[in-house]
Amino acid sequence: MATVKLWTDEEAAAHPRIQAVFEDIRETRKSDFINNFWRALANQPDVLERTWSGVKDVMVRPGVLDPLTKELIYIAVSATNSCSYCVHSHTAAARAKGMTEEQHSELLAILALASQTNVLANVLQIPVDVEFQR
Amino acid sequence: MATVKLWTDEEAAAHPRIQAVFEDIRETRKSDFINNFWRALANQPDVLERTWSGVKDVMVRPGVLDPLTKELIYIAVSATNSCSYCVHSHTAAARAKGMTEEQHSELLAILALASQTNVLANVLQIPVDVEFQR
Amino acid sequence: MATVKLWTDEEAAAHPRIQAVFEDIRETRKSDFINNFWRALANQPDVLERTWSGVKDVMVRPGVLDPLTKELIYIAVSATNSCSYCVHSHTAAARAKGMTEEQHSELLAILALASQTNVLANVLQIPVDVEFQR
Amino acid sequence: MATVKLWTDEEAAAHPRIQAVFEDIRETRKSDFINNFWRALANQPDVLERTWSGVKDVMVRPGVLDPLTKELIYIAVSATNSCSYCVHSHTAAARAKGMTEEQHSELLAILALASQTNVLANVLQIPVDVEFQR
Amino acid sequence: MATVKLWTDEEAAAHPRIQAVFEDIRETRKSDFINNFWRALANQPDVLERTWSGVKDVMVRPGVLDPLTKELIYIAVSATNSCSYCVHSHTAAARAKGMTEEQHSELLAILALASQTNVLANVLQIPVDVEFQR
Amino acid sequence: MATVKLWTDEEAAAHPRIQAVFEDIRETRKSDFINNFWRALANQPDVLERTWSGVKDVMVRPGVLDPLTKELIYIAVSATNSCSYCVHSHTAAARAKGMTEEQHSELLAILALASQTNVLANVLQIPVDVEFQR
Repeated sequence: MATVKLWTDEEAAAHPRIQAVFEDIRETRKSDFINNFWRALANQPDVLERTWSGVKDVMVRPGVLDPLTKELIYIAVSATNSCSYCVHSHTAAARAKGMTEEQHSELLAILALASQTNVLANVLQIPVDVEFQR
Repeated sequence: MATVKLWTDEEAAAHPRIQAVFEDIRETRKSDFINNFWRALANQPDVLERTWSGVKDVMVRPGVLDPLTKELIYIAVSATNSCSYCVHSHTAAARAKGMTEEQHSELLAILALASQTNVLANVLQIPVDVEFQR
Repeated sequence: MATVKLWTDEEAAAHPRIQAVFEDIRETRKSDFINNFWRALANQPDVLERTWSGVKDVMVRPGVLDPLTKELIYIAVSATNSCSYCVHSHTAAARAKGMTEEQHSELLAILALASQTNVLANVLQIPVDVEFQR
Repeated sequence: MATVKLWTDEEAAAHPRIQAVFEDIRETRKSDFINNFWRALANQPDVLERTWSGVKDVMVRPGVLDPLTKELIYIAVSATNSCSYCVHSHTAAARAKGMTEEQHSELLAILALASQTNVLANVLQIPVDVEFQR
Repeated sequence: MATVKLWTDEEAAAHPRIQAVFEDIRETRKSDFINNFWRALANQPDVLERTWSGVKDVMVRPGVLDPLTKELIYIAVSATNSCSYCVHSHTAAARAKGMTEEQHSELLAILALASQTNVLANVLQIPVDVEFQR
Repeated sequence: MATVKLWTDEEAAAHPRIQAVFEDIRETRKSDFINNFWRALANQPDVLERTWSGVKDVMVRPGVLDPLTKELIYIAVSATNSCSYCVHSHTAAARAKGMTEEQHSELLAILALASQTNVLANVLQIPVDVEFQR
């Protein structure tokens, strides 16, 4: 259960700032579906607007990394942060952008390996080689 | 300072299991440089062999994700886990594999955005949409 | 599902050490409600007593920070640690102590911003300015 | 050592977008000091502009939480995320905004208590009470 | 809900690599029960084989730490990483290996104490004593 | 550099509450050495007293887990939390209590394995088996 209300379409329609973001999400994504993340943020229009603007800038606007690579990085951060909602939503997004089972499998292998070497480097407190310093 | 001894080449030369891993690292990477991570793991030959074998399988063996994408995912996990050594070594690796300033910039933007939406999803305890469930 | 039994009032009544803590919680909070956290800790009377004593010292006893500020800090730690139970219980506590929607909104904005700059500082491994060192 | 170059004032002066942010930081803070965080972000003007804009919106613009409370929350997130740079810079900022030893002491006590109850709730997997659900 | 399919025994029977791992799990554990972790990893035979091989090497093969001590350490890592599934499965495993209520209680006390001193050391940025450096 | 002053023996001698804790640490440990953690906490006598009392209760008082097992669990939490100071101090403590290279090696192997399966369970969002629920 969320710690805040999830806004329905009817409730959003009565608040111009929220309605404007919901409409922009629908137009940008060419889909009627508004997921719970945005329905929860609607309680705080400032946070809603800033967060959606960030998602558009970083994930929607074409850049030098392709959209699927961006989603794989997003899943990596979300799994490491134990964010259940984010893992679910960005795994779905990655699949919608064409992630194959083989790509998912390699992502899992990298996550497993990196988590393992991270904790080893931390428990051994390994000093950074001068070769890695700029 | 490491919590364990960092093995020199001379010390490694006297222990066949360690020497074998060091040689394989050099041959695989076509470089004489052995970074401190492996010199620290040398205290535990079992962990050294298993970890290097994992790195070869996941990061060296060609797969469906290209080598630079793998490094970007590795950096994402390492930064999220606050692993200073790993961030340094894999940022250097990503640069060696051709990461441009623009790609680094987009990686930073995704890390910043994902960390932000992760904590928002966690503090609002947003329930997973049925659309995201398989 | 908890990994331990949640103690009912009847079960607690039969064990003086547990009963004493439950009674003190009720008196301190002027409420009959004992939440699951304490019903789970009841399996370990030492941990139960020490933890409740810590909560009384830090969160109940008047100090220089006001009770609502303390709850906002508590939520910040709990969200960052991905503790679902703690986010729920301390968001409820903050509301009981008068947290407004505007205050909740600003808390979310700070959590989002800090998580973002934390990961940027970690991925860039920025050295601490001498001006920040005592 | 940072994984990126730290921009000097001379280098910033030659790039209008970076120079504009540096000037705005100086004017906003009424101080000539630009800390390393911004000198590192200067390599990525997009990230620099978006991050500084976020800091101004959230930490500088007057809101319903007072400036010191905001810094205490910021420190709480940064310590939980093990961000050394952020702990240093925001502890300095909290002191500059008047944090007393007594306030610092209570912040520490809350951080210690919350970290402790977080891990207990996580290891016991305590179910959320219906009373805490909206 | 998992983000991947959980393989049934019938599905596994049709894929030799998966079937081989499932059989080895059953023989090694002298039990017919295959828990969901392995049923989820079955989607990625490479990750399944490597992970099971790691579990056998580290947790099953006799070593210098006794099996219960290994499970206590496993629970400590899992609780700190907020891994709900892992806390559940390894608490069950620790009980199956004879963990008493008193041992569980002491584990909780150490987790609570360590989490508390960790955040204090991080928020105070305490320098490592030369006596602790090798 | 610490974000607070580290108290010298001379400064502690002038403050009875601090001096009392320092003396108790020396007597309990049969050693003159007071490590920086306590010298930093001395700025907050309340936190100093409560933390030392917790360490004595949990780590010094004989219990059902032996002293070395307790230190291994402490290291596991500290490495997972990326607490550099805590990894250094508790690795030193474990060695002082007799940790062998073989035991250290097995600890590393468990840390690596658990971190790996934690992230896999989190990225796959594996549902808890009913067999693991009490």
